[in-house]
Amino acid sequence: MSESNQVKVAIVGSTGYGGVELIRFLLNHPNVEITSVISSSNAGESITEGFPHLSELLVQRLDGVDPALIKSKADVVFTATPSGVSGKLVPQLLAEGLKVIDLSGDFRIKDGAVYEEWYKHDAPPAGLLEQAVYGLCEENGAQVKGLDFVSNPGCYPTATLLGLLPAVKEGWIDPGSIIIDAKSGVSGAGRGTSLMTHYAEINENMKVYKVNKHQHIPEIEQALSIASGSPVTVTFTTHLVPMTRGIMSTMYAKLTGSRSEQELVDLYRHYYEGRPFVRVREPGKFPATKEVFGSNYCDIGFAADARTGRLTIVSVIDNVVKGAAGQAIQNLNLMMGWEETTGLQLSPVYP
Amino acid sequence: MSESNQVKVAIVGSTGYGGVELIRFLLNHPNVEITSVISSSNAGESITEGFPHLSELLVQRLDGVDPALIKSKADVVFTATPSGVSGKLVPQLLAEGLKVIDLSGDFRIKDGAVYEEWYKHDAPPAGLLEQAVYGLCEENGAQVKGLDFVSNPGCYPTATLLGLLPAVKEGWIDPGSIIIDAKSGVSGAGRGTSLMTHYAEINENMKVYKVNKHQHIPEIEQALSIASGSPVTVTFTTHLVPMTRGIMSTMYAKLTGSRSEQELVDLYRHYYEGRPFVRVREPGKFPATKEVFGSNYCDIGFAADARTGRLTIVSVIDNVVKGAAGQAIQNLNLMMGWEETTGLQLSPVYP
Amino acid sequence: MSESNQVKVAIVGSTGYGGVELIRFLLNHPNVEITSVISSSNAGESITEGFPHLSELLVQRLDGVDPALIKSKADVVFTATPSGVSGKLVPQLLAEGLKVIDLSGDFRIKDGAVYEEWYKHDAPPAGLLEQAVYGLCEENGAQVKGLDFVSNPGCYPTATLLGLLPAVKEGWIDPGSIIIDAKSGVSGAGRGTSLMTHYAEINENMKVYKVNKHQHIPEIEQALSIASGSPVTVTFTTHLVPMTRGIMSTMYAKLTGSRSEQELVDLYRHYYEGRPFVRVREPGKFPATKEVFGSNYCDIGFAADARTGRLTIVSVIDNVVKGAAGQAIQNLNLMMGWEETTGLQLSPVYP
Amino acid sequence: MSESNQVKVAIVGSTGYGGVELIRFLLNHPNVEITSVISSSNAGESITEGFPHLSELLVQRLDGVDPALIKSKADVVFTATPSGVSGKLVPQLLAEGLKVIDLSGDFRIKDGAVYEEWYKHDAPPAGLLEQAVYGLCEENGAQVKGLDFVSNPGCYPTATLLGLLPAVKEGWIDPGSIIIDAKSGVSGAGRGTSLMTHYAEINENMKVYKVNKHQHIPEIEQALSIASGSPVTVTFTTHLVPMTRGIMSTMYAKLTGSRSEQELVDLYRHYYEGRPFVRVREPGKFPATKEVFGSNYCDIGFAADARTGRLTIVSVIDNVVKGAAGQAIQNLNLMMGWEETTGLQLSPVYP
Repeated sequence: MSESNQVKVAIVGSTGYGGVELIRFLLNHPNVEITSVISSSNAGESITEGFPHLSELLVQRLDGVDPALIKSKADVVFTATPSGVSGKLVPQLLAEGLKVIDLSGDFRIKDGAVYEEWYKHDAPPAGLLEQAVYGLCEENGAQVKGLDFVSNPGCYPTATLLGLLPAVKEGWIDPGSIIIDAKSGVSGAGRGTSLMTHYAEINENMKVYKVNKHQHIPEIEQALSIASGSPVTVTFTTHLVPMTRGIMSTMYAKLTGSRSEQELVDLYRHYYEGRPFVRVREPGKFPATKEVFGSNYCDIGFAADARTGRLTIVSVIDNVVKGAAGQAIQNLNLMMGWEETTGLQLSPVYP
Repeated sequence: MSESNQVKVAIVGSTGYGGVELIRFLLNHPNVEITSVISSSNAGESITEGFPHLSELLVQRLDGVDPALIKSKADVVFTATPSGVSGKLVPQLLAEGLKVIDLSGDFRIKDGAVYEEWYKHDAPPAGLLEQAVYGLCEENGAQVKGLDFVSNPGCYPTATLLGLLPAVKEGWIDPGSIIIDAKSGVSGAGRGTSLMTHYAEINENMKVYKVNKHQHIPEIEQALSIASGSPVTVTFTTHLVPMTRGIMSTMYAKLTGSRSEQELVDLYRHYYEGRPFVRVREPGKFPATKEVFGSNYCDIGFAADARTGRLTIVSVIDNVVKGAAGQAIQNLNLMMGWEETTGLQLSPVYP
Repeated sequence: MSESNQVKVAIVGSTGYGGVELIRFLLNHPNVEITSVISSSNAGESITEGFPHLSELLVQRLDGVDPALIKSKADVVFTATPSGVSGKLVPQLLAEGLKVIDLSGDFRIKDGAVYEEWYKHDAPPAGLLEQAVYGLCEENGAQVKGLDFVSNPGCYPTATLLGLLPAVKEGWIDPGSIIIDAKSGVSGAGRGTSLMTHYAEINENMKVYKVNKHQHIPEIEQALSIASGSPVTVTFTTHLVPMTRGIMSTMYAKLTGSRSEQELVDLYRHYYEGRPFVRVREPGKFPATKEVFGSNYCDIGFAADARTGRLTIVSVIDNVVKGAAGQAIQNLNLMMGWEETTGLQLSPVYP
Repeated sequence: MSESNQVKVAIVGSTGYGGVELIRFLLNHPNVEITSVISSSNAGESITEGFPHLSELLVQRLDGVDPALIKSKADVVFTATPSGVSGKLVPQLLAEGLKVIDLSGDFRIKDGAVYEEWYKHDAPPAGLLEQAVYGLCEENGAQVKGLDFVSNPGCYPTATLLGLLPAVKEGWIDPGSIIIDAKSGVSGAGRGTSLMTHYAEINENMKVYKVNKHQHIPEIEQALSIASGSPVTVTFTTHLVPMTRGIMSTMYAKLTGSRSEQELVDLYRHYYEGRPFVRVREPGKFPATKEVFGSNYCDIGFAADARTGRLTIVSVIDNVVKGAAGQAIQNLNLMMGWEETTGLQLSPVYP
């Protein structure tokens, strides 16, 4: 399958859920060859040992984390690593001359002090924080073209910002009134084992977690502040839903004027014109998470309520795809100057 | 099992989820005997035909809906009927001299015009609307004692009002700022078959529905308006979660002053002192729906956010118990002057 | 996307689960264009009305069931229709000169009398039953090449027969001793609404159904009888599992001699050499249904038990893919002389 | 709630699923007071820390594992401990003069050598193995009365043996032909965290595990051998189902003669006459796991197949109740000479 004109890619953290999803989509990508799957803990083992669903699809042994080795095997590297790890690894990879798409949260917050307040450990070097472009493709896609290093957005921020930015930029909602009630499937918690992800604890259960403390809050506020031109503070709550994939972000804000749902649909469709992965529903229709399952889509719906003067926005993504691996490949496509949708044109899996 | 001093109860709508849950709890109630299980559609059939889990526990055939027959068999009747049906049936049952606990929404809204706006059909007679006491036990329990007719609250309003009333009454939150993001398991949609409740459509899926249109909105607003002393309008959104039982109501409001979480816990614990079915969690701890599964508890937690000046309240119930059958029996206990907890002292089922 | 050299395909029953899955894969198929999506009940409506996950992927209105219209729009037609419907429709489609791949069970049983005993309605014309090739691709693929009409196998028989045929043919197990304990996700019951598929009835539940009465029994026995050269009768039990997709067939049989698991793996790997969609696991390893989720794979594992002299075979498929739409497209590829894997090379979705 | 005539009970392993379920039922038991909840790992912590569903129901701190301390607080002790631990602890508890009901597997196998072969560690002292009565209540209930020490059966063996014993004893099935295909919810794997119980790995998935290697095999064979009067070997396969609670055992065997389903129902109903927790379904009807959820029932159904001469038996229990805590309390009731159903008369929770 290796052809001379294919770009060689490596995946650090390939035994996490973001990593195996990168593999699923990259196997389907015509311009790319996976040349190294990397895991800090299982080096030497076959990738199919832990992931038999890849049997006969990817016959490779896991490499250890070694920048020089990566450089010898690949041109581009995805770092699907925990926060704190990427902050140290990415500078080494860039120093090797590799192109890097980082899926951790380490390079999303421009202000190191804010990073440290929310992430509770040291920030990466300030210079690199500045250099890192925030790869929310529909927003910063033009900027990403030709870059060597992109910081891939978080799952919750992707769903939330795609739902809020057009209305905030247009001044149709009061940024100070924004309340975000977000729900996620359990894969968002990663593959590590804990009571939090134990089947019997989360099945037939709904939990709220990290209330007012989630590290995606500053990521959302940073983007909204840029969009509105002044500091924005939001209320953001995260819930764990008994399902594997999917994020739904239900957002509330005060309308600055009277707006019909049709006007909102028109605004958003215009805003996302030519952006293939955002689908705005008809007035009065709302998306469900399953309608984007396994795909790179973000679907959005609205209700404007005359009784309360508030706007309700519902935005859904598959957290593992548009919230992680899919958007990372979308960034790869933009960096390489390829068609943005290359390898990502898969229909949602339904039911 | 029938003893002379036991009160005879009938259940109209005993083949719905509220109805079978009434059976589960009433079988465990020492002062009560189930003398008639009633269904408009399956009269003549054994109750165990459709509900084999009741085998050997309740050996009865279903009766048809006939007020005189009910009167001949029972002293008290639960009407777990669809809205629109109770409005017509309850007057007949009261005329027969039966005590009635109505689980439909027909008698919850005092203003017939408001009822008709949200329920989309004719309201019951105004006199009966006035007579109906809204049986939110922790709020109106004293009033319920000795009554012949109680209107049992809705599932969402129960979780929501128990979470909001103390703060609203104390003036600690701005009633005009209340946003309620509610999530429910699928049993709340009833036992009727539809694409909405098809397993393959809702499993691994999260949906939003009836945005700004749910008939529980006026019920919540009516109670909050009484509590605050002036008209209150809320934003209320309902979501369907892939689980069978459980409601989580996540509520947001502006704090009128600076409050610590400890102060909130103290306020609520004081407010619910002596009310056995409300459990207020420690500061910073939040309840999950599974922690009340199968029980009559409502568990509540708080987060006060200095950054935004907002209070987040999380309230959970089992929609079929505290949100329907359990609270109805709690009302029966209050009506009859029995200990409020009789027959309801079951631990949540965990896991 | 329409290119002149693309084959035009129509899908009858496109609003069922088999139908929408055909759409998902055909949208990804380079040699094919979907020119008509057909539904007997929703003609005129946009396909995205009921299936918003297809928004912007397939912009078409549903056609009614009209053979002449289909002929005017398409070269090949998939009939994903209920049994009894195909039996009448397929002759008309063939008469129009269309190529047909039938996903109903109507043409799988060669003996009309047997069909009528199990299906409880009239069999299609005997001539057509004889003409219909049973499209279990790994078994009859060579025969399918160039055909105009193929009968696509049932979901349970596909998983079961791929697991049994090599051992039966080789004479390693006693055909008279075969017991098949099969488990399926709920999508196998179709999109029609019923108490059987109501979320609250099947979630957190395991059911057995149609014991000794399932219409897939004669389909399995017919193929095993051909393979073994004499009539085979099997015990076959079906269970409903609280998941959407996936079939696991656990099969038991007496070994005719002592066999190691390695010998079995070798036999099966040899048997399925060059068949891209069967993956035989290492000795002692068993597949789980999620490991083929969303893909066209059938994965198989073995345990030979010296204590009892029995062989246990576990075979898994995604019932909607290899058990329906995927195998139908595999048959299309074979009929058209295309590479068997065209459009089907998607990795399972994990997790 | 402590009354002078209540028996004081302690629970070792009270932070496992068997342990918390013992608490749920014992809180509802009129003759018993829980005086010590014991955990080797969390001593000193409040039980509600890890199990907030018990808030206000059980206000106790966890004790460490100390036989003398247990003796000072309790009369009876349940040991819901891992296999290997009970083998050492139980002799100490008995030496203290405590009555013991052991929920581990350590005392179920009479033959120490067999124990060691399947459990892979040392067997308890042979004397104690002999002394231990196997507390399958419906089988050995009479023997349990007045005992000081009972070995509580395993979850799979309970469902399986209740389904097989009457037919085996009556000689209606060939013991050498028995094949058991068993399915369990995830709570059966315990509360320990592992990839096996990770939500994202088991949701929407069906797995087979420990094929031909499960430690419940010798337990089942021992009881069947006693029942049939000669050594019985069975094929027994276990599957993990994406649900929390419930075991379904689907059993296959050759009928020794022609039997109607009605005859089987009659045989079993006669056999279990006066045994309140076994419910035999009508001919042709099968139980589902949810129909016993949360209850101590074992429900059984049959299909006799004239085509194959085989009998299919389906038996369901809640693995945490009749498969563990419920049956343990049933044994307590028998040991103490109380009504067998005391504290256990709870209806299944449905839906």
